[in-house]
Amino acid sequence: MNARKIPDIIIGRLPVYLRALQHMAEIGLKTTSSQELGENVGISAAQIRKDISQFGEFGKQGTGYSIEYLIDKLREILKVDRYWDVVVVGAGDMGHALVNYQGFSDRGFHIVAIFDNDKAKVGQNISKFNVEDTDTMIDRIKELGVKIAMLTVPAAAAQVVADQLVQAGVRAILNYAPISLNVPNNVKVQYIDPSTHLQRMTYYL
Amino acid sequence: MNARKIPDIIIGRLPVYLRALQHMAEIGLKTTSSQELGENVGISAAQIRKDISQFGEFGKQGTGYSIEYLIDKLREILKVDRYWDVVVVGAGDMGHALVNYQGFSDRGFHIVAIFDNDKAKVGQNISKFNVEDTDTMIDRIKELGVKIAMLTVPAAAAQVVADQLVQAGVRAILNYAPISLNVPNNVKVQYIDPSTHLQRMTYYL
Repeated sequence: MNARKIPDIIIGRLPVYLRALQHMAEIGLKTTSSQELGENVGISAAQIRKDISQFGEFGKQGTGYSIEYLIDKLREILKVDRYWDVVVVGAGDMGHALVNYQGFSDRGFHIVAIFDNDKAKVGQNISKFNVEDTDTMIDRIKELGVKIAMLTVPAAAAQVVADQLVQAGVRAILNYAPISLNVPNNVKVQYIDPSTHLQRMTYYL
Repeated sequence: MNARKIPDIIIGRLPVYLRALQHMAEIGLKTTSSQELGENVGISAAQIRKDISQFGEFGKQGTGYSIEYLIDKLREILKVDRYWDVVVVGAGDMGHALVNYQGFSDRGFHIVAIFDNDKAKVGQNISKFNVEDTDTMIDRIKELGVKIAMLTVPAAAAQVVADQLVQAGVRAILNYAPISLNVPNNVKVQYIDPSTHLQRMTYYL
């Protein structure tokens, strides 16, 4: 990998390529082309070749890409050739759904704890976890050394909790609360808000 | 609104502006500037002015934007100045979380039905809904005239269900299954996949 700055929009497409390639590998395919991969993810073959070439020469003219090799390279680039510990904050419906979700372990993530500020929920079991108190969250995250959090608290509480997460050393937040967060420049935030995604489509209806 | 083709990337930012403006209105603000809105959503003031000017002249030099007026205009542009009926397919954890989610009604959406193919789940209550059988889904969606669906089935089932939704007249799918869908050009798909969002951030850690 080189030190050139890769545009964020390209970084954003790599996990989508990786997911499609992992799916191809699961169904037994060995090689693919930018054309085939493009049809799979709805992105032009030219764009895919351009994106992947940012990181080196992975394909061979005429024979295409080795799926296994490209998976390895993308996992290395995205740093998911290892496991990342993740905490969930908010033990409501969405927190439950995330803790029970089966799609993290083969994509590089392990949930290690779930927190809530509701004393009625603290101590309850969700899957193999005991819900922990947000009062002890900062120390606990520092102790665990966790850098990634998923935030499923109500919008009104989200900024306060985000500040605590940053204080605890978290540097990547997946925010399910329908509100934009203010965080320092060295902290990344991604947003999952179903209404925003739906509104992006109604424009076209 | 004019008939010029607005780039999809701009359309994608409008729901984020709308959400921030609605939040400002809730806390009692009357006017805002592109600077303030930009700080709120993490987008430059220049970009915001450029995006909004695509649709006409909404702000006044020096006095900024009327929040209420801009909310009305954005809701009109995004066609959420009305309610859209939405169905949920898949009555697992995520389906439950969506049916119970409080953040749809003030953003233009009403869930009207939830479906599952598991006969053990069909007939069960989730909130005010009875889980309906996917066997009757196509006719039911046609009868209801629903154009929007949220898909929370396992990846292996997602394409088959998406095909059925398209056949039933659905033209916008919010896909929670971690797989890319193939749909006709006149159908929009948005993806919500937490692992993909997390992988987009680990690159920077």
